[in-house]
Amino acid sequence: MSVGELFNPRSIALVGATDKSGWSISTLANLRAHGFPGPVHLVNPRGGVVHGQAAYRSLTEIPERVDLAYVMVPTAAVLGVLREGAKLGIRCYVILTAGFGESGEEGARLEAEITAFAAEHGLTILGPNGNGYINAAAGVTPYGLPIQPPLLRGAVGVVLQSGALASSVLGFAQARNVGISLLTSMGNETVMTVTDVIEYLVDDPATKVIALFLETIRNPAEFSRVARRALEAGKPIVALKIGRSKLASHTAQAHTGALVGDDDVIDAALRQLGVIRVRSLEDLIITAGLLASTGPLPGRRVGVVTPSGGASEIIADRAEDEGLELPPFAPETVAKLAEIVPSFGTVQNPLDVTGYVLIDRTLLGRALEAVTSDPGIDLIMLLSEPPKVAPPDPAPVLAMYAASAQRIAASPVPVVVVSNVLTDVTEFGRRVQEETGFPYVAGGIEHGLQAIAAAVRWSEQRERVLARPAPLPRAGAAPEGASGVWAEHRAAALLASAGLPVVPSELAGDEEAAVAAAERFGYPVVLKAAAEGLGHKSDVGGVRLGLGGAEEVRRAYREIVAAVPSLAGVLVQPQRTGGIELLVGVVRDAAWGLTLAVGLGGVWVEVLRDTALRVLPVDAAEVRRALGELRGAALLNGVRGGEPADLDAVADVVARVAAFAESLGDGLESLEINPLLVSGSRVEALDALITWR
Amino acid sequence: MSVGELFNPRSIALVGATDKSGWSISTLANLRAHGFPGPVHLVNPRGGVVHGQAAYRSLTEIPERVDLAYVMVPTAAVLGVLREGAKLGIRCYVILTAGFGESGEEGARLEAEITAFAAEHGLTILGPNGNGYINAAAGVTPYGLPIQPPLLRGAVGVVLQSGALASSVLGFAQARNVGISLLTSMGNETVMTVTDVIEYLVDDPATKVIALFLETIRNPAEFSRVARRALEAGKPIVALKIGRSKLASHTAQAHTGALVGDDDVIDAALRQLGVIRVRSLEDLIITAGLLASTGPLPGRRVGVVTPSGGASEIIADRAEDEGLELPPFAPETVAKLAEIVPSFGTVQNPLDVTGYVLIDRTLLGRALEAVTSDPGIDLIMLLSEPPKVAPPDPAPVLAMYAASAQRIAASPVPVVVVSNVLTDVTEFGRRVQEETGFPYVAGGIEHGLQAIAAAVRWSEQRERVLARPAPLPRAGAAPEGASGVWAEHRAAALLASAGLPVVPSELAGDEEAAVAAAERFGYPVVLKAAAEGLGHKSDVGGVRLGLGGAEEVRRAYREIVAAVPSLAGVLVQPQRTGGIELLVGVVRDAAWGLTLAVGLGGVWVEVLRDTALRVLPVDAAEVRRALGELRGAALLNGVRGGEPADLDAVADVVARVAAFAESLGDGLESLEINPLLVSGSRVEALDALITWR
Repeated sequence: MSVGELFNPRSIALVGATDKSGWSISTLANLRAHGFPGPVHLVNPRGGVVHGQAAYRSLTEIPERVDLAYVMVPTAAVLGVLREGAKLGIRCYVILTAGFGESGEEGARLEAEITAFAAEHGLTILGPNGNGYINAAAGVTPYGLPIQPPLLRGAVGVVLQSGALASSVLGFAQARNVGISLLTSMGNETVMTVTDVIEYLVDDPATKVIALFLETIRNPAEFSRVARRALEAGKPIVALKIGRSKLASHTAQAHTGALVGDDDVIDAALRQLGVIRVRSLEDLIITAGLLASTGPLPGRRVGVVTPSGGASEIIADRAEDEGLELPPFAPETVAKLAEIVPSFGTVQNPLDVTGYVLIDRTLLGRALEAVTSDPGIDLIMLLSEPPKVAPPDPAPVLAMYAASAQRIAASPVPVVVVSNVLTDVTEFGRRVQEETGFPYVAGGIEHGLQAIAAAVRWSEQRERVLARPAPLPRAGAAPEGASGVWAEHRAAALLASAGLPVVPSELAGDEEAAVAAAERFGYPVVLKAAAEGLGHKSDVGGVRLGLGGAEEVRRAYREIVAAVPSLAGVLVQPQRTGGIELLVGVVRDAAWGLTLAVGLGGVWVEVLRDTALRVLPVDAAEVRRALGELRGAALLNGVRGGEPADLDAVADVVARVAAFAESLGDGLESLEINPLLVSGSRVEALDALITWR
Repeated sequence: MSVGELFNPRSIALVGATDKSGWSISTLANLRAHGFPGPVHLVNPRGGVVHGQAAYRSLTEIPERVDLAYVMVPTAAVLGVLREGAKLGIRCYVILTAGFGESGEEGARLEAEITAFAAEHGLTILGPNGNGYINAAAGVTPYGLPIQPPLLRGAVGVVLQSGALASSVLGFAQARNVGISLLTSMGNETVMTVTDVIEYLVDDPATKVIALFLETIRNPAEFSRVARRALEAGKPIVALKIGRSKLASHTAQAHTGALVGDDDVIDAALRQLGVIRVRSLEDLIITAGLLASTGPLPGRRVGVVTPSGGASEIIADRAEDEGLELPPFAPETVAKLAEIVPSFGTVQNPLDVTGYVLIDRTLLGRALEAVTSDPGIDLIMLLSEPPKVAPPDPAPVLAMYAASAQRIAASPVPVVVVSNVLTDVTEFGRRVQEETGFPYVAGGIEHGLQAIAAAVRWSEQRERVLARPAPLPRAGAAPEGASGVWAEHRAAALLASAGLPVVPSELAGDEEAAVAAAERFGYPVVLKAAAEGLGHKSDVGGVRLGLGGAEEVRRAYREIVAAVPSLAGVLVQPQRTGGIELLVGVVRDAAWGLTLAVGLGGVWVEVLRDTALRVLPVDAAEVRRALGELRGAALLNGVRGGEPADLDAVADVVARVAAFAESLGDGLESLEINPLLVSGSRVEALDALITWR
């Protein structure tokens, strides 16, 4: 695909240009206003003058080479334009026209024709049903809606699956003084997809950060690949992925199915890929702008320098929520600050240099300088912002901000500037930033702290992900008879055959065999119904616990046989006591494939849905991190005198279960161990359930 | 106190006025710029011309009556000014001067002198160490920092315990086009306190909503009283209360102490008082502005009307998080909308009327009109906003917004307008709102949804609180010997004497007495060490469970006696099995007094800290609501075949425990029942601990 060509044409034809269309007017006006240097040809079947310019009757009439055709003709005429263009050697198209897949069956048929034609002739198409793109870096703006000036050029590439939000995103970026490199409105993604654009942006020297608005991730494998490339290139991806409120329709046989929502899987996948997920359009742009300005942040220990006690207390509260640390300043920093901060102030982190800043304009800057050399601080959050209104003589203000900018630039640790509240950077504010180099202002306190925390997490996660080789999907094959629901005795045998720790058991065909098995294990024992297709054994009276002697075993055997029809036999196991029960489930997500859920058993999963998810493959280190995310994680460390679990041993077994699930091939629907009993370093599956597609 | 006089003077003297002080310059400039109609006299001991105006040498020299003195003299001279003023009959003062209690011991002494003098002479003082106030409603602005024009008049009263944030709050309110009635910068609250100002605002006809920035609530009882008055007056209080990150230092004897942080208590208290707590300055102003514009909102069922699929999906996601409901439209609404929305759109809630709005400017308005009459909708969220930039001919735009404004005003349910992203309302946007009546825009989607949800919760809570009489503190007296830690046998006996359900028990002085008691109760029984001052009995080997016969009881008795020194005896109780364990604790908060914590026992409190708090008094209905807030609430309804708890019976017992705690007088430090065992409708305290101050 010729993505680079599409975004960097030297000549453009607007096909279907007409004075009657707002899109046509806007597109031409945008190309003229934002510096497109090449020729823009207008095509209208009636010819004549359009937008004050002579129009051609067809693409064929244009005497010069056309690099990009921007197509606004009626739905039924689009394919004809592509046919004509392909004949002329035009390889790149933006199709604004709607009425395709989004509008019903007939539209979907027309769209399929376009897809097929594009594939056959090697055409690169953005759309249909999209407004086009804004390549601000190159001054190429074939875009169908008005662009509110000024169009700020910068390092954030924006990819949107919703055209209607583009104006808001552009407007908000402008209000934050965040410049963009490229903005694309994807439309139906018939040919070119979000991942194609991401890949272009990863290679685009003008782009440092990629901001996405996603309604759906069409191809998770492809998305994973380009997300990894972005990480390797050091370009953060920030994503607002919507559709969270929809719940999954996973298999209900295993507990895990009910615990794993579509969005939970996406959330886990994005984290594993090092993609920053945000929850608002504001955070999307503020976070992207921050990372474009600072790059990776070296740690979560923040030194806070403010001119306000109230603001520093808000920061203290919210920083804790966001997982940022505000460590005490080092003694040498305290000593330096004590000479700077007025005596009625308090030297602490977060630092309030006091309202005396109104009298001594150097106070904040000198305090900042003292904090930049603190050895225990990874980055500084400085409360400041450019002025809103130009004074009659701007020179002193510009000089003051230039001095601040120099101090900030000289800091050995990153300095993130944040304002108290989220208000627009005004025209004069932009001028101050441009002329003095005063840095980006990452929102008000609320959004600024969220952005800092997200940037810190990204920096940490990037190192973690890149420290390991890119995960490769493992090939596997299903065992014989892999269909339906495999109850405990078959599932457990399969796990045991792979060397996974499973509680010993024997399948007994009559009372005496059950007693003999029980005596081999030693009392107390457990009896369980062994029947194909039986998921929740205990719900149908198929489980008897704590059997202390032969007579109890016989009675239990008879009761199970009476309660459960079509038994393959009764499973006898030694009864385990003590320890902590985990649930370990691997379930196939329709989009992302096998996904691991680990959680504490019993009420923890049933009432709290307290599970941690990972898309496979995972290694033991990643499983350990997952265990640490559980709300009940403290239980694993031993509470009330309980033995702490050997987390390495647990993580090792869980990672092996996950790898084993992958080895079972595409037919595996879910594999669940519930419970996996942990006593110190003994880890043992007490029950298992496998379902096949 | 003459709060009304202080905020509405007819003449003002600036004492300590000097050309050298920015505060002096700003205060006079503010009074002149924002319409103060009365005389402003300047006082400077040297006389002469100050700010281009003849200055008096003292207050005494002023030939006219002075209603308010704004004091900027050096710290040591402040009391002298008050003395002179008091002699002249000047009753109201703003003291800007700092250097009092906030700066150390000597300052605190000077401040105490001022307090005493003010009390003696009936002076009303705002400050010291505060910038003054802005009475925008009356055009009285004795305020020491520059006020960025325009000063917007409106219905939000703002009270700030941080002077440094006032400019940000004013700036953000202006950016949202939220007008204020009064803004006060409280300073040290030596005489006039936050609650005095709240009370003034409750009575102030210009004020509809009260917005607070609080560092501390100095007098909870007084705060509770004025909060109730505000509720009764239908004036919402929105508060950003900071200091959340500090943890409490409550008694560690009871579990409850470790579970109840200072901020948890404040959070509970604010909710019980119907105060809306927000977590950012943006939410403070956006929420206050919304409530000033709509008043109470009738319910949480929201109809959403947008011109954008992307935005409506963001709203669907976030509305769920915020506890708002987006019910399906009624069939008649769907039928109406089907005629309005283009055929390629989808008629659903949230509604995307499609990008066709760009062609048909009436589309959004007609869709809104159809939704306003839906019988299942309590309020409408309309995605729209005034324009940012004035077109060459603003008339058509004004006409369009006037038509929208009329539609919105005609709606039988409240319509809350929200924009996609949080950017400033521009000067032209304000003009459109003023000239057309186009309503307040409650932030971008993110803050707008939070504000709507907060307003809905306030409306619900208001009805709930006002449905009950204002709670009165109950008087009480401690029993004899109320000191130290009362272990189980005494605590349980006290509870039982009040008619609370306590498991039967006998205190045995030797082995045989223990066996005799056990046989009266029937096996199995429990033995527990009974010793004064012994909190966690089980930690020292003082508890033996599940004793099935006489011999076991004897052995347990001997082991307990060996393990625990200075026993008062051994407690024998029947062993209970099954049921759900609750923790019920009442602990005295230093500020708010007795506070109830209820939670599920065991890991739920130990690992998850899953408790619900209420400041006392509470009734059973409030306790039921508290139980419903627990993350493990589902356990009470019975999981995995467990018997559901009789929530009315539980709430009744817990409310009686709380009332009993109140009856024990000021000496009670904490009273804890852990566990309170619930089996269906049987509710029984199995252990109790009382500590006295």
